[in-house]
Amino acid sequence: MKSSLEILKERMGDVNALGAAMAMMDWDQQTYMPRGGAEARANHLECLSKMHHDIFIADETRKALEGAKAEASSEDDVALLRVIGRDLDLATKLPSELVARKTKLSAIAHEEWVRARTQDDFEGFAPTLEQMFEIVKEEAHHLGFTDHIYDAVTDQYEEGATAADWKKMFEAIKGPQVELVKAIQATGPVDDSRLYGEWDRQKQSQFTEMIVSKIGFDFNRGRQDTAPHPFCTGWSVGDIRLTTRYKPYLGSAIFGSLHEAGHGMYEQGSPAAWDLTSLAGGVSLGLHESQSRTWENIVGRSEAFWSHFLPNLQESFPQLADIELGSFMRMINKVEPSLIRVEADELTYNLHVLVRFEIECAVLEGSLEVKDLPEAWNAKYKEYLGITPPNNAQGCLQDVHWSMGSIGYFPTYSMGNILSYQIWNSLEKDVKNPFDLIAKGEFESILGWLQKNIYSQGRKHTPKDLIKAATGEEMNTKYYLDGLGAKYRKLYSL
Amino acid sequence: MKSSLEILKERMGDVNALGAAMAMMDWDQQTYMPRGGAEARANHLECLSKMHHDIFIADETRKALEGAKAEASSEDDVALLRVIGRDLDLATKLPSELVARKTKLSAIAHEEWVRARTQDDFEGFAPTLEQMFEIVKEEAHHLGFTDHIYDAVTDQYEEGATAADWKKMFEAIKGPQVELVKAIQATGPVDDSRLYGEWDRQKQSQFTEMIVSKIGFDFNRGRQDTAPHPFCTGWSVGDIRLTTRYKPYLGSAIFGSLHEAGHGMYEQGSPAAWDLTSLAGGVSLGLHESQSRTWENIVGRSEAFWSHFLPNLQESFPQLADIELGSFMRMINKVEPSLIRVEADELTYNLHVLVRFEIECAVLEGSLEVKDLPEAWNAKYKEYLGITPPNNAQGCLQDVHWSMGSIGYFPTYSMGNILSYQIWNSLEKDVKNPFDLIAKGEFESILGWLQKNIYSQGRKHTPKDLIKAATGEEMNTKYYLDGLGAKYRKLYSL
Repeated sequence: MKSSLEILKERMGDVNALGAAMAMMDWDQQTYMPRGGAEARANHLECLSKMHHDIFIADETRKALEGAKAEASSEDDVALLRVIGRDLDLATKLPSELVARKTKLSAIAHEEWVRARTQDDFEGFAPTLEQMFEIVKEEAHHLGFTDHIYDAVTDQYEEGATAADWKKMFEAIKGPQVELVKAIQATGPVDDSRLYGEWDRQKQSQFTEMIVSKIGFDFNRGRQDTAPHPFCTGWSVGDIRLTTRYKPYLGSAIFGSLHEAGHGMYEQGSPAAWDLTSLAGGVSLGLHESQSRTWENIVGRSEAFWSHFLPNLQESFPQLADIELGSFMRMINKVEPSLIRVEADELTYNLHVLVRFEIECAVLEGSLEVKDLPEAWNAKYKEYLGITPPNNAQGCLQDVHWSMGSIGYFPTYSMGNILSYQIWNSLEKDVKNPFDLIAKGEFESILGWLQKNIYSQGRKHTPKDLIKAATGEEMNTKYYLDGLGAKYRKLYSL
Repeated sequence: MKSSLEILKERMGDVNALGAAMAMMDWDQQTYMPRGGAEARANHLECLSKMHHDIFIADETRKALEGAKAEASSEDDVALLRVIGRDLDLATKLPSELVARKTKLSAIAHEEWVRARTQDDFEGFAPTLEQMFEIVKEEAHHLGFTDHIYDAVTDQYEEGATAADWKKMFEAIKGPQVELVKAIQATGPVDDSRLYGEWDRQKQSQFTEMIVSKIGFDFNRGRQDTAPHPFCTGWSVGDIRLTTRYKPYLGSAIFGSLHEAGHGMYEQGSPAAWDLTSLAGGVSLGLHESQSRTWENIVGRSEAFWSHFLPNLQESFPQLADIELGSFMRMINKVEPSLIRVEADELTYNLHVLVRFEIECAVLEGSLEVKDLPEAWNAKYKEYLGITPPNNAQGCLQDVHWSMGSIGYFPTYSMGNILSYQIWNSLEKDVKNPFDLIAKGEFESILGWLQKNIYSQGRKHTPKDLIKAATGEEMNTKYYLDGLGAKYRKLYSL
């Protein structure tokens, strides 16, 4: 007779397979699907998401989980049951009907958002967005919270995080970041026009695959394709995929690829023994983002990195042959308040996130109505970034997240930024002079440290425990502010 | 309250979504999946196939189907219930355990077959192949048959077909085809060496996409990728995908693309109203193959076709600029007994199929043991084609089908050849001088006739009824033999 643990693992195998099927369809939709396939794809995803939810939250799963708790003896099995338990608790609180309704609204809202952004028509999109916020409020009440409604939704993305945590985080970084931005702006504008032009796609593809392969992304267990919005996804430790994009700004492909490769190496570093189980992969969005930002910004925008790779880039694109390392560094680290989050520099990025966080809180708690959202958005951009969007397309309609119902997600981007420097600080205690290694094109010990301390831990510990184990303390904004300050004061000779 | 018909349609929506998920994973495996993804993919497919089977054959489906029979009023709904009923009868006869066992063995057998073919090791593969034949025998006994065990397995691929039908079919064509091949061989060898070389992949891709687009494959509702073995698959009438391959023989890409586009246009021609239901798509393997062979051979190897497209081909590949239409026609229609089925010409192709059919019958009925298969194979190649394979890799190990358990499938290839000419003969009664249109690059009325009479019928009628409705009679080998005879006697001045 099968043990409860075996029954549970079998059921979770089905849940995992359905998740894999949805991830495959999603990857395909964003990379290769012909236009005509959209309607059927939405239909198939709706069916699969409902099946996924129903099979997962069925009484049999709960029963097997409870039985397995008495059987589990290994540390890994105990951790596995904790993780399944958390996921199951969250999922069980949400009625199937609500899950299916959200999936369906997402498909519709996504199409409407695309149209609204193209036509700068917030008014036309507002009723749908309002419905989405209402659904997320419903979710929050099903999930439950004690202090703030935001706590319920953000915990889904970052276990244990609360609105109060995020407020504290933003308060700590906002002042110093605004000040640093102002000091940099006083030094006058940086001309990065040389990085705009028409760049051969094939060469961009080859160059980005070369650098991400050099830093440690394994192409035997992954690949890179193109997508309108770069992302990373996967099916097993043996199949992790990146996407990038080719735009007039050459940095789009380079830093897009490095960013996604950071996510990808995190996933590729998950232990093979946990593959296809709930222990595999990244522990939270914040920690995942810390790794994409580490490889994109700390490594990928460093002087050491480009002292090694600029000659290769110039070989691929001879029109850049006369650019010196110093000016290249200022170009790729140009700081300037701008309208669009995904194109924002490392310093102003968190201010974009803050705007979204405050607006999400206000709408969820009922102090802001969706119809008044553009006004609130523009006022905050004026206040934090000193600029006003000329229209809603470049304002509150710019992000895809809300149309998908991903509300409570944005602050994890800033958490990732902050953690990237904190983790790097710990890494530097063990890996001596990492930038000397980077300058030589040697990434093994850096990747090895991250693998050992972060990637190989999968979801075994809670995010908070993992941060503590890897860095010796809770999330601390000090390393981020110090690191950014040092980097930019040097770059801009402040 | 929902009607039984509504409940049935909903359930079938889930079954369809799981089928779509498996098709997506299969397409990906053959086109883009990195090597490291194979193990997880097999695991996911095993889970999904079991869920697919279990949900389909559950009592609820049968109950809803029986209830729906009393409710269905429209002709389409009645046809839908007939088709679901047939699929359900077949599926219900197979125990879940057997389905899962076959899926798992297929995954293993496929890997072993790849190894065995590479190493020319039939002996090493024989035990697995024997297991597969045993599983298929089990299937046959579950499915049931009255005359020959082969009837049970072949009916899954071609509704209503029996071993006796196939024997009659092969008997009718074997003599005349062997005779024609001999007469052609007596005229001396054709030199097609100009079609072998190194051909730019990008240009092959562009040229093949251009011709399949011109004949009517809609790239807004489809795409073309590359795969080791070309195939066509799809998810809806809006998303049908072809694959092709680039080899030293230039014809591989061209005729591979035309062949798959024939399958693809059949699928794209399915009525939108039936999309994602059991009425959508091709009615049987034989009819599907008739359409791939129509566009590949009757249209794609015709003088009219190349009088139009040879200049384009020569523009893409200037090294062919001096080839005249007449010699090009002989090259692409070269007849020569050869070892490999997929590379065989139109005339000898059926002899390859006959060898497989006779061997499958013999193993299933127990008159041939798997261990003696190579000997039987080689004797038949000697007898029908006059050649002996130098090894098993180029002999009985060449096809993928048996490793997948697709036994009873091969004769539908010959059925497709025969039907293609029979259907074309009917088309010529309504579409006057189709080759004059082809020579002008006009394909609308040809595609239109096929759409009206075949593609738009989906699975509404049985294959036998559809053939009768489209051509006025049962399958008749006369048109095929007459058509081939006329074509090749003209080409070879016999």
